[in-house]
Amino acid sequence: MLNMPPFKSHPFDDDKLHEECGIFGIFGHEEASAHTALGLHALQHRGQEAAGVVTVGDGQFHSHKALGHVGDNFNSENVISELSGPNAIGHVRYSTTGGTLLRNVQPIFAEFDFGGLAIGHNGNLTNTQTLRKTLIKRGCIFQSTMDTEIIIHLVAISLYSSVVDRLVDALRQVEGAYSLVALTEDSVIGVRDPHGVRPLVLGKVGDSYILASETCALDIIGADFIRDVEPGEIIVINAEGIHSIKPFAPVTSRFCIFEYIYFARPDSVLENKNVYNVRKAIGEELSRESRIEADMVVPVPDSGVPAAIGYAEASGIPFELGIIRNHYVGRTFIEPGQEIRNFGVKLKHNANKAKIEGKRVILVDDSIVRGTTSMKIADMVRAAGATEVHLCISSPPTAYSCYYGIDTPEREDLMAAQMSIDEMAKQIGVDSLQFISIEGLYRAVGEKTRNEECPQFCDACFTGGYPTVLTDKEGGNNTSQLSLLSERD
Amino acid sequence: MLNMPPFKSHPFDDDKLHEECGIFGIFGHEEASAHTALGLHALQHRGQEAAGVVTVGDGQFHSHKALGHVGDNFNSENVISELSGPNAIGHVRYSTTGGTLLRNVQPIFAEFDFGGLAIGHNGNLTNTQTLRKTLIKRGCIFQSTMDTEIIIHLVAISLYSSVVDRLVDALRQVEGAYSLVALTEDSVIGVRDPHGVRPLVLGKVGDSYILASETCALDIIGADFIRDVEPGEIIVINAEGIHSIKPFAPVTSRFCIFEYIYFARPDSVLENKNVYNVRKAIGEELSRESRIEADMVVPVPDSGVPAAIGYAEASGIPFELGIIRNHYVGRTFIEPGQEIRNFGVKLKHNANKAKIEGKRVILVDDSIVRGTTSMKIADMVRAAGATEVHLCISSPPTAYSCYYGIDTPEREDLMAAQMSIDEMAKQIGVDSLQFISIEGLYRAVGEKTRNEECPQFCDACFTGGYPTVLTDKEGGNNTSQLSLLSERD
Amino acid sequence: MLNMPPFKSHPFDDDKLHEECGIFGIFGHEEASAHTALGLHALQHRGQEAAGVVTVGDGQFHSHKALGHVGDNFNSENVISELSGPNAIGHVRYSTTGGTLLRNVQPIFAEFDFGGLAIGHNGNLTNTQTLRKTLIKRGCIFQSTMDTEIIIHLVAISLYSSVVDRLVDALRQVEGAYSLVALTEDSVIGVRDPHGVRPLVLGKVGDSYILASETCALDIIGADFIRDVEPGEIIVINAEGIHSIKPFAPVTSRFCIFEYIYFARPDSVLENKNVYNVRKAIGEELSRESRIEADMVVPVPDSGVPAAIGYAEASGIPFELGIIRNHYVGRTFIEPGQEIRNFGVKLKHNANKAKIEGKRVILVDDSIVRGTTSMKIADMVRAAGATEVHLCISSPPTAYSCYYGIDTPEREDLMAAQMSIDEMAKQIGVDSLQFISIEGLYRAVGEKTRNEECPQFCDACFTGGYPTVLTDKEGGNNTSQLSLLSERD
Amino acid sequence: MLNMPPFKSHPFDDDKLHEECGIFGIFGHEEASAHTALGLHALQHRGQEAAGVVTVGDGQFHSHKALGHVGDNFNSENVISELSGPNAIGHVRYSTTGGTLLRNVQPIFAEFDFGGLAIGHNGNLTNTQTLRKTLIKRGCIFQSTMDTEIIIHLVAISLYSSVVDRLVDALRQVEGAYSLVALTEDSVIGVRDPHGVRPLVLGKVGDSYILASETCALDIIGADFIRDVEPGEIIVINAEGIHSIKPFAPVTSRFCIFEYIYFARPDSVLENKNVYNVRKAIGEELSRESRIEADMVVPVPDSGVPAAIGYAEASGIPFELGIIRNHYVGRTFIEPGQEIRNFGVKLKHNANKAKIEGKRVILVDDSIVRGTTSMKIADMVRAAGATEVHLCISSPPTAYSCYYGIDTPEREDLMAAQMSIDEMAKQIGVDSLQFISIEGLYRAVGEKTRNEECPQFCDACFTGGYPTVLTDKEGGNNTSQLSLLSERD
Repeated sequence: MLNMPPFKSHPFDDDKLHEECGIFGIFGHEEASAHTALGLHALQHRGQEAAGVVTVGDGQFHSHKALGHVGDNFNSENVISELSGPNAIGHVRYSTTGGTLLRNVQPIFAEFDFGGLAIGHNGNLTNTQTLRKTLIKRGCIFQSTMDTEIIIHLVAISLYSSVVDRLVDALRQVEGAYSLVALTEDSVIGVRDPHGVRPLVLGKVGDSYILASETCALDIIGADFIRDVEPGEIIVINAEGIHSIKPFAPVTSRFCIFEYIYFARPDSVLENKNVYNVRKAIGEELSRESRIEADMVVPVPDSGVPAAIGYAEASGIPFELGIIRNHYVGRTFIEPGQEIRNFGVKLKHNANKAKIEGKRVILVDDSIVRGTTSMKIADMVRAAGATEVHLCISSPPTAYSCYYGIDTPEREDLMAAQMSIDEMAKQIGVDSLQFISIEGLYRAVGEKTRNEECPQFCDACFTGGYPTVLTDKEGGNNTSQLSLLSERD
Repeated sequence: MLNMPPFKSHPFDDDKLHEECGIFGIFGHEEASAHTALGLHALQHRGQEAAGVVTVGDGQFHSHKALGHVGDNFNSENVISELSGPNAIGHVRYSTTGGTLLRNVQPIFAEFDFGGLAIGHNGNLTNTQTLRKTLIKRGCIFQSTMDTEIIIHLVAISLYSSVVDRLVDALRQVEGAYSLVALTEDSVIGVRDPHGVRPLVLGKVGDSYILASETCALDIIGADFIRDVEPGEIIVINAEGIHSIKPFAPVTSRFCIFEYIYFARPDSVLENKNVYNVRKAIGEELSRESRIEADMVVPVPDSGVPAAIGYAEASGIPFELGIIRNHYVGRTFIEPGQEIRNFGVKLKHNANKAKIEGKRVILVDDSIVRGTTSMKIADMVRAAGATEVHLCISSPPTAYSCYYGIDTPEREDLMAAQMSIDEMAKQIGVDSLQFISIEGLYRAVGEKTRNEECPQFCDACFTGGYPTVLTDKEGGNNTSQLSLLSERD
Repeated sequence: MLNMPPFKSHPFDDDKLHEECGIFGIFGHEEASAHTALGLHALQHRGQEAAGVVTVGDGQFHSHKALGHVGDNFNSENVISELSGPNAIGHVRYSTTGGTLLRNVQPIFAEFDFGGLAIGHNGNLTNTQTLRKTLIKRGCIFQSTMDTEIIIHLVAISLYSSVVDRLVDALRQVEGAYSLVALTEDSVIGVRDPHGVRPLVLGKVGDSYILASETCALDIIGADFIRDVEPGEIIVINAEGIHSIKPFAPVTSRFCIFEYIYFARPDSVLENKNVYNVRKAIGEELSRESRIEADMVVPVPDSGVPAAIGYAEASGIPFELGIIRNHYVGRTFIEPGQEIRNFGVKLKHNANKAKIEGKRVILVDDSIVRGTTSMKIADMVRAAGATEVHLCISSPPTAYSCYYGIDTPEREDLMAAQMSIDEMAKQIGVDSLQFISIEGLYRAVGEKTRNEECPQFCDACFTGGYPTVLTDKEGGNNTSQLSLLSERD
Repeated sequence: MLNMPPFKSHPFDDDKLHEECGIFGIFGHEEASAHTALGLHALQHRGQEAAGVVTVGDGQFHSHKALGHVGDNFNSENVISELSGPNAIGHVRYSTTGGTLLRNVQPIFAEFDFGGLAIGHNGNLTNTQTLRKTLIKRGCIFQSTMDTEIIIHLVAISLYSSVVDRLVDALRQVEGAYSLVALTEDSVIGVRDPHGVRPLVLGKVGDSYILASETCALDIIGADFIRDVEPGEIIVINAEGIHSIKPFAPVTSRFCIFEYIYFARPDSVLENKNVYNVRKAIGEELSRESRIEADMVVPVPDSGVPAAIGYAEASGIPFELGIIRNHYVGRTFIEPGQEIRNFGVKLKHNANKAKIEGKRVILVDDSIVRGTTSMKIADMVRAAGATEVHLCISSPPTAYSCYYGIDTPEREDLMAAQMSIDEMAKQIGVDSLQFISIEGLYRAVGEKTRNEECPQFCDACFTGGYPTVLTDKEGGNNTSQLSLLSERD
């Protein structure tokens, strides 16, 4: 990239798991591209490093992709008006292995015998390497390192004739998690994988149907929420209306439970539950499970706030802003040689010393990944004079990597995969450390109990119970070398 | 500016008063510039459009100024290492009339017969135009449209010999509000005007004294807070230590009470009071004054949060995040022609519909300026299904412009200057509208009552009682045309 | 492209035919990428809008492509050191239909069953559309709108096993003009099409063989010229040395005669002739054919200079700089409403009035395409006071489009396709207009006469005699719509 | 500067003296700014690093300044239309000591008791340091490190009342060389210093008078040349017409003779002589003085071309392009570790080997400063096979620094100040080295002989005879430290 704009970090980006993508689609709207840009803006928390929109009208497709935020790249009359046509899909992306090259930004577009097709994908396939090798052997030329391109090639070589039949043919060959939006000359298509691991919702504004990763993308454009796209469902929206098929063998739904804990926006409603309410409920469960005596409940801003409110309500201990966030994120300051204690965390947070000095503090955070930030925050709070520091986490210990579209470290870097909870508490430097139990978590999302045989959610990052086979990983193909080419542009 | 970086808006920038500047100084530290950059980062909420640092060592001054955030411009080894020398001052600025030209960025530096001098200023002078005319007549050449340059010229033509004497000579001729940091070849100087309208604190890290607008700038570098610089005090820090003089006739202290309400960061301690605690106390007073029955207290994020916590605690009504903020600010989206209801506010906020539908809601916000955003938020909350919307404001009605370094609209644009509270409630579209009383506000900051003869704070924006004469305004000199030149660079 | 650097126009860019590409390759050199960057800099006149380099070492390919000049994008240690490996190819490109998207910049790289392969192409294929349709029907996914990608797909689906066999298989299916450099894991390959329309030379520095479009790219790195690659020859350079094959049916060589007239650099030697010497010889022939009486011979700078020197020498009329070029090209000035006579041409040229006032002037230029610039220059010279203006052109009338990698207007825009020479003279506004005859041109390049049956050069732009079939054009496939997608990036 | 555009080097920039500025002014034209931009474009060779324009209309001044070329910064409707008003001045600048800060770009603007005044300056003052110290002592605040700012302050403190009287008052105190354009609310003023060292011409288009450094800036906008502004003359252009005064004591005219040799554009007419004709005449004189036998005369492109044409004509030896220039300048390529012979010079020039191999070559260049480039060119020509290399220089040996606005090295870096001509020939590696004699030079510019008592031109760089006192230099004030501040912006 020439003159790449400085990336602005995710406001909660330290030591967190990251959702990798958000998707959006709209059919039959005279301002399809402007609405797509707004929908993607509402989904920006699902991917901050790049965004793309493809539209179609009168048989001509239009595309614009850019590194950086939606609001920095899709805010000009110029861009929006070139993205003409009544049908559009869009994508936001958090970059992972393979680097942030423009050619890796979605939606992917390709031309086929039947015409053009663009696809935006949230999730991750688990047999990418295996399929890629086969396809290259057949003479397919890959233009990116994205797993999504596999689907494009499978569609291209399918022997079926209709787009939908070719797409089904392709999807039957892939494994893993995928919510997709697709755009053809005359339709917008939404797909959710058989387990429904990643979210996808259906909405409507005026006569136009909309597909989006979360309901907050419907709210921003004043659209009504209709329903979740169902696991294994393909919804085709075209001039004749909406048409649903379920071409895959039925399996149990396994929606990602971490969407409730951290990934989704609190104002979204996913699978009939408001995310904010679930987070408060987790806080309440956590309070009941932990039973700590303290002077105040302090959230680690901003993601710990809803659970902390729930915790405070349930326990009767006052909720206080004992840590203040600097809204101006500056992750690249030069650290002075004369070391400043907790330097990195202080660029974003400051303990509210006047408030917590001499007090017993319950910190509420959503998860512990590597543990590095937790250590610094605990130390900062203690340095500000807290007499006791208790850390309560609104998820069970994260002990397994995710292969379904979440950026997780290798297992050996997950603190909970390497230590007992007591060891973690000691390492982090807190007086006590409490995770919500897996059962408590299931209660908070409204289940009586976790169905051990056939869990109601994907909770593999806590339990190691992956809903699909992991072909690449098991075949030793899970290599980070996706290409013979290293490129800068 | 060639290739000016896109400005990122203040996260709370709609329809708010704006603090215009933050200042920082450090003496005798081997990493003076790196620490100044960090201090300015902690003060970024006081000015987002430009930042500057001047250092000095071995008689050579070094300067770097840039439009944009501190974290985007003072984050390279290159910049920091060119800013060598053990003494430094810095400045962040919110741009106002005159445009955002680089030559209007502070600190201002000039050479004098006695050597170099750099000045950074928080506040605003009220006899700028009058003095400027006189100085131009005398043959002074102005290089900017900043009021601060007046001080530079007065120092240059002073007949006194020492820098401090010249500075005192200059300051005796200016009127208005000013907290200053100044840098000479061998000293760092801090000044607060006789009324102490704007804040300035003294701290220390190792053997190095520090001056900063707020204590949060001490915390980020691990410095200890010593005390507030007193109104009318000049503190000179040099190799011999610290030296304080009070060269002005004593007048009553009139610290800006709005610093507690909104401008300062919640974790700062100013004039011995923690800002967060004051805000909570205002919320408590407001709850006692308003006595509304409702189902939940909802802050307008993020500035309404502390008062809402206080309100909820005092009233026993649950505190809920009924409005969710989008952390990715995008103020320049193209508004679709098919109008989206409350478009502008939705780019930043979304009502948490699942939470507030069918509920009686108390919204807590810090102030109403033009009222435009309040209308949209009230409408958005009602559209999400709230049955009653009550708006409680943690400041008295803002009915007068500020001339002391706060960006306020003309009086005719202040909603409270044009309407009664009932009219405002109707215009905004809420079931009730409640401002904290001026007496309640004084109680919240720890005073028994407001001393009507001689108020303990500057509250002119609420009461019209300005602590100084307003020479330019009264002389009709308060023209926005500061220069014969309009310039782009 | 984000923040695309402003394109600097070709210094001779008005109303000229444009060479579209330059290519370079080097094998077995420890500074392969630095030398490739220098070679491309020497070939910059063959393509100014984009440049790319691909290197390979230890099985890993490295690529960098950028819009703009070589000297602006391949001048950092960073870029050069990331382009590691002892073998490299590079490409400069003048953009044509399809826009200047980064993904259209060469060399193209792709992965195959046998490993990686990168290709850089100078020339143009004439059955692109026909082959592309067939390949898409087969399931091939195209990533660009470049004709060169056809070759990549043909290689991918070839049933042969070795790279060279697959390449031959592919090239046997394409029609048109191509000089290629290709890079595999262990070789650099050079190819010239059976007619040898575009140039390609072989050189050597130390033990490293080099391929380049022109000898000037050898000179810059101090390499020795060995010989031209022959028409229809494939040269494979690998660790065992150099290996030549001629897999195509032999046809007559038809080297592009316009390379001598304008495209190539004057210091290059192509097909055993020094370009500067040929241009002088054309000027001499032109003088003999035209026999004009005048006071001075004035070149249209800079491309008319060598022919003007030849003309002056042969005629004995003094050579004078009667038109001065502004070295600072500024093609995008705002034209004032109060029209300035010959505005566009004056940004680049000025008549040297003191020299030409009252004089009879022979202007020497290399070609007339649309005639627009010629009109302005003639008018400018006359306005400066020349009493007679005679225009002598060192090429025959350009009356046919080129389909072999030269950017020419449609035939209806070629002045010589629409008018007689007399009409042209009148339209341009000169006292006489003289083109060199086709026979005179052949004499100047050293031939006795043009072999009418089987011409020794490609002179189709003058005669309409195209050396290959033009499948796309004849099949009506010569559409400018290469893709269903319009894209900005 | 944020994101400073890459500077494009002067096409002839190696080892040359550099003119530092070009100026332009226009009065009473409805497209004053667009015409000023064009005039500055024609003067770009006099300064490439920055440009500025100030306009005035209805009492409001408008300014735009930028680093880089005119054509890159004054080419948008936006910029031109903001520069409104019928009167304008402009400036191009080659940066020297003090760095290329935007605040050092001219024209300088300031406000005075009488209104606004902008000044653009070509030349250099020789008592800057002395005056600056005095003015600072008086309380003047300097905003730049430019000598021109001295004039601004002297005008500001002058006790006279009219602008012109104040300007005369100021100029009587400065020493050195200056051609000025100045802009007031109702006039454009042109000034040439008493010796007339730097050029300034008067022209007219329609009813609008124009001032410009050279006549080529009149030609580009179709203006007529009227006359040179005379040494010591002040021309005031206002609504009443044109008014000339000569307020200084008369001294001999001493126009810079190097303007003819190299600085000015060949198509300009200065002091009644066409620059191209003078250069040819120098070449003719040089031929008569040197009398070398050779096969060809080869110019060092491009500045050596006119003298080489004159040399060839006078000697009868053929003129040939034996060195070819690469039009794409790339001064920042990474030099490979495996050293390439004459690397730097090869980025710009290539010997036309096929032409010069086995030949006796006379190289013609305009001057030798440090001699570094001459060495490389001579070596390159010899390496290409020339049997003899004779170097003829169209100026006398440059043995003294210039203090009048030309960027020259310190005297110890001038080759001719350190060596005899024979030593220089040996060092450069040529068979013979010939400079034109000072007498030959005077003959070429039309003088019978140099008046030794009172030379007709400033030829100080050859003879050391400076026309003015050099107060700063003699007072030891010629320090490169112009400011206590080092700044980046």
